[in-house]
Amino acid sequence: MISEKLVQQMNFINEIEKLKIVYRQNGVVGGARQENSAEHSWHIAIMAFTLQEYAEKDIDILRVIKMLLIHDLVEIYAGDVFLYDDAGRDKIKTQEKKAADKLFGLLPDEQSREFNGLWNEYEQASTKEAKYALVLDNLQPILNHYYTRNQNIKGKKIKKSQVINKKRCIKEYSEELWAFTLETIDKSVAIGLFEDD
Amino acid sequence: MISEKLVQQMNFINEIEKLKIVYRQNGVVGGARQENSAEHSWHIAIMAFTLQEYAEKDIDILRVIKMLLIHDLVEIYAGDVFLYDDAGRDKIKTQEKKAADKLFGLLPDEQSREFNGLWNEYEQASTKEAKYALVLDNLQPILNHYYTRNQNIKGKKIKKSQVINKKRCIKEYSEELWAFTLETIDKSVAIGLFEDD
Repeated sequence: MISEKLVQQMNFINEIEKLKIVYRQNGVVGGARQENSAEHSWHIAIMAFTLQEYAEKDIDILRVIKMLLIHDLVEIYAGDVFLYDDAGRDKIKTQEKKAADKLFGLLPDEQSREFNGLWNEYEQASTKEAKYALVLDNLQPILNHYYTRNQNIKGKKIKKSQVINKKRCIKEYSEELWAFTLETIDKSVAIGLFEDD
Repeated sequence: MISEKLVQQMNFINEIEKLKIVYRQNGVVGGARQENSAEHSWHIAIMAFTLQEYAEKDIDILRVIKMLLIHDLVEIYAGDVFLYDDAGRDKIKTQEKKAADKLFGLLPDEQSREFNGLWNEYEQASTKEAKYALVLDNLQPILNHYYTRNQNIKGKKIKKSQVINKKRCIKEYSEELWAFTLETIDKSVAIGLFEDD
């Protein structure tokens, strides 16, 4: 009565529990702990349809949301690497590829290919859906650091110019989202979360 | 350059940070803390498209996912009430309605109505999309308790018959999902998470 296919799907659903204990540099309200990649993914998925009007016209929003919900799953095996750790981020690419094969390989063949394809599309940032997804993934930490007054990021001594450099995908994508991002970066500098150059 | 509309949308996006500190009776892998409603919502949104073949044909999966991502937001003001606390759940309904008005009221009018509508649709469980969403919301804790060996739920001394009674929406929805649910409930009883009657 329980098909092998359903067992595979449930194995995947159980395995991704582990993303809830992959912690990021973001904070949570109150500062009791750092944010994990599961709740981060939830947040940007809601942002995707809340801010849809700033995306390219005729975007496939379902595809964007699926991509955002699964884009960090490889961290279950490969870990989360801090955005400003350039050496670490280059090194992690091979491990992330292996992690995707292992994790999505739990699913039935057709779904395994679909999920791996969505993850690759996000990584390449080649389609309009992946480009919008990347913008949201980069915008959320800026909002999060400021809103939670994230003391963890303060300790990293990141300069405003580094932030602006890392977030230029937002600037290239939407004038209005960039204006808001820049205003939030400036307010973050004013309270000492990032350092002025 | 930054429109009032974008400010409203960003206020909403910031406010929902707070769902990450609304804790549930579910656990996380390793048992270091309880699961929060944001990561729970992330999990069931992925379940929605992973298990789509068990849903009714021609379901609007984007609508299901949006509903699942926002269905618990009212808990930011109203709190999470344990599934097996019947008195508490009846009492909370008015507070949740107020919470929905307050939270979705942060958004521009049109979006406020859309999000409130999605939340109401889920609460009523009247459409095929809401019915499937409800099934997933009820299935995930069963998987979570067993996979994380959730010691918190063990302490609640819930009986197998109570679980089966609360989860009958799954039974009525899909024979295959129910078979898997029942098997997981039995395995949970075997390791003492629920009590045999």
